[in-house]
Amino acid sequence: MAKPKNSLSTDSYVKGILARNITVLSKAITLVESKLKSDLEFAQEIIEQCLPHSGNSIRIAVSGIPGAGKSSFIDVFGSLLTKEFGKKVAVLTVDPSSQISKGSILGDKVRMEKLSNDENAYIRPSPSSGSLGGVTRSTRESIILCEAAGFDVIIIETVGVGQSEITVRSMVDFFLLLHLSGTGDELQGIKRGIIEIADAIAVNKCDGDNIKKAELAKREIENAVHLFHQSESGWQTRVMTCSAIKNTGIEDIWSMIEEYIGHVLENGFFDLNRNQQSKSWLYETITNMLEESFYSTEGIGDEIKRIEKEVTAGKINTFNAGTMLLKLYKSSLKDS
Amino acid sequence: MAKPKNSLSTDSYVKGILARNITVLSKAITLVESKLKSDLEFAQEIIEQCLPHSGNSIRIAVSGIPGAGKSSFIDVFGSLLTKEFGKKVAVLTVDPSSQISKGSILGDKVRMEKLSNDENAYIRPSPSSGSLGGVTRSTRESIILCEAAGFDVIIIETVGVGQSEITVRSMVDFFLLLHLSGTGDELQGIKRGIIEIADAIAVNKCDGDNIKKAELAKREIENAVHLFHQSESGWQTRVMTCSAIKNTGIEDIWSMIEEYIGHVLENGFFDLNRNQQSKSWLYETITNMLEESFYSTEGIGDEIKRIEKEVTAGKINTFNAGTMLLKLYKSSLKDS
Repeated sequence: MAKPKNSLSTDSYVKGILARNITVLSKAITLVESKLKSDLEFAQEIIEQCLPHSGNSIRIAVSGIPGAGKSSFIDVFGSLLTKEFGKKVAVLTVDPSSQISKGSILGDKVRMEKLSNDENAYIRPSPSSGSLGGVTRSTRESIILCEAAGFDVIIIETVGVGQSEITVRSMVDFFLLLHLSGTGDELQGIKRGIIEIADAIAVNKCDGDNIKKAELAKREIENAVHLFHQSESGWQTRVMTCSAIKNTGIEDIWSMIEEYIGHVLENGFFDLNRNQQSKSWLYETITNMLEESFYSTEGIGDEIKRIEKEVTAGKINTFNAGTMLLKLYKSSLKDS
Repeated sequence: MAKPKNSLSTDSYVKGILARNITVLSKAITLVESKLKSDLEFAQEIIEQCLPHSGNSIRIAVSGIPGAGKSSFIDVFGSLLTKEFGKKVAVLTVDPSSQISKGSILGDKVRMEKLSNDENAYIRPSPSSGSLGGVTRSTRESIILCEAAGFDVIIIETVGVGQSEITVRSMVDFFLLLHLSGTGDELQGIKRGIIEIADAIAVNKCDGDNIKKAELAKREIENAVHLFHQSESGWQTRVMTCSAIKNTGIEDIWSMIEEYIGHVLENGFFDLNRNQQSKSWLYETITNMLEESFYSTEGIGDEIKRIEKEVTAGKINTFNAGTMLLKLYKSSLKDS
């Protein structure tokens, strides 16, 4: 018979994580991703004790459309960090669109062959949970656990679809966009708004017959990037080329990230950004909890469906609709 | 002694509005903008009865940085609509940054000299309330009242600062950005993300010595615009030039808006967009009301200040912080 998930004590979990016991770390992340309330509450006890040991990593987002070569890039980039720079690298993936079965863990390991056989690396695929809100929380909490386990570079891989980049931007120190040079009309291939949140754009697959195209793409994107305002960090978005397959340009990207970190540590933006991220996360959490409490209240769902129709038909105004619903919510809280 | 604001009955208000009695309409909007709970509740009764008579206008946002010539443009554009096209035009301004005294009403009237003396036009300056949330609600409700009063073009003037454009985008059918040609590096002068929400960009002050510069700016912006994806409406953002002072290009802009409306009525986006806007508004209202109820609960404010410090210091995790705060909220609801 399978053991219940939380057969370990909080203490054993925390000790295991701090000792970088990967099995324990993985189990703890599974608790964080669980949909069971009891698991989640148990997970929070673990996180609470890991918090004092967290925060000491560089958090990097790697984003890009499917086919941009994110996995191969992370495989080579991560291996460089463990082999040449003595880093411990954790890779978390955020893909709210994925509905992955257990097989995907194998999938991710195959996608990152070097890193998955590297004892200084840990790869954790996206949870199968569908909602961005859920994935956001569990990813943020997994970062804390990985940091407590001594990983000093956390890479968040995110598929460039939907709202996920904006969300991932709010949990990292550095945002790297991987770009695949295309038809010559390069900006067409870059999602709206993404230039504005990227700290660097790397044109990947700059190798063989592709070199000329990639260099051209780089110049075109560079021109576009310079038309935008500088970001709050005082850092001008960099545009680079690289090839994960030929292992070129990868070390330059790491040097650039180190340069960035030095820059924002010096001008204070690093701490400012982390503090802002923590505060936003608190206020987001409060709003999410309020909404969850509201929408899970018995009777609210049916009432909303009814009222939504009346609102779009112009039969009832929004303020009155909201007031009615809130009254219903408050009175059912009192009765509970 | 001054009469109490709501000395008229709901019925008299509604009758007055439907008869396009501008004094009554203005009084109703003042109720909508009031900070008094009793005024707001009374306003909702009026809105409720006006709703069946609303929805039959074209809602146009006119945005642009200070100095782009929004007022002169709206003055000439609105006059064209009333004089040549038999339209009734209401102008509402959204400027959450403004802290206007009563004198500003005069200010707006002077800024739009023709329109303020036009019996088929109604100009309503931004409420002095500072919060974007409050301005958003009152503007949306003012649109309903103006439509019930028979205005068939509603122009929402918004200053191109802060988050206000995104908000205004969510209440209009068409978003027009006015641009003032500048240094030649045209995209620098356009706020991040704004190209993506604009249905058209008009380079204003294309007159006299400025014509060449404006035409150049038009071409440069056109190039940038075409690099972006098409919007959900299936409409490619147009770039035009105009001169409010010389009254050139203004009628072309109206023709274009009519073309747009025809396009989205035919492909169904017009109704889809309005329905989405109504639904989003309902869900936003619910969230706002939940947040207001939470943050106005006695003791929550102090507790948050304390907890925020612990969260940013990494002493308590966000989930536990949120859970504690929500418990406090719920228990004080029960006691109330």
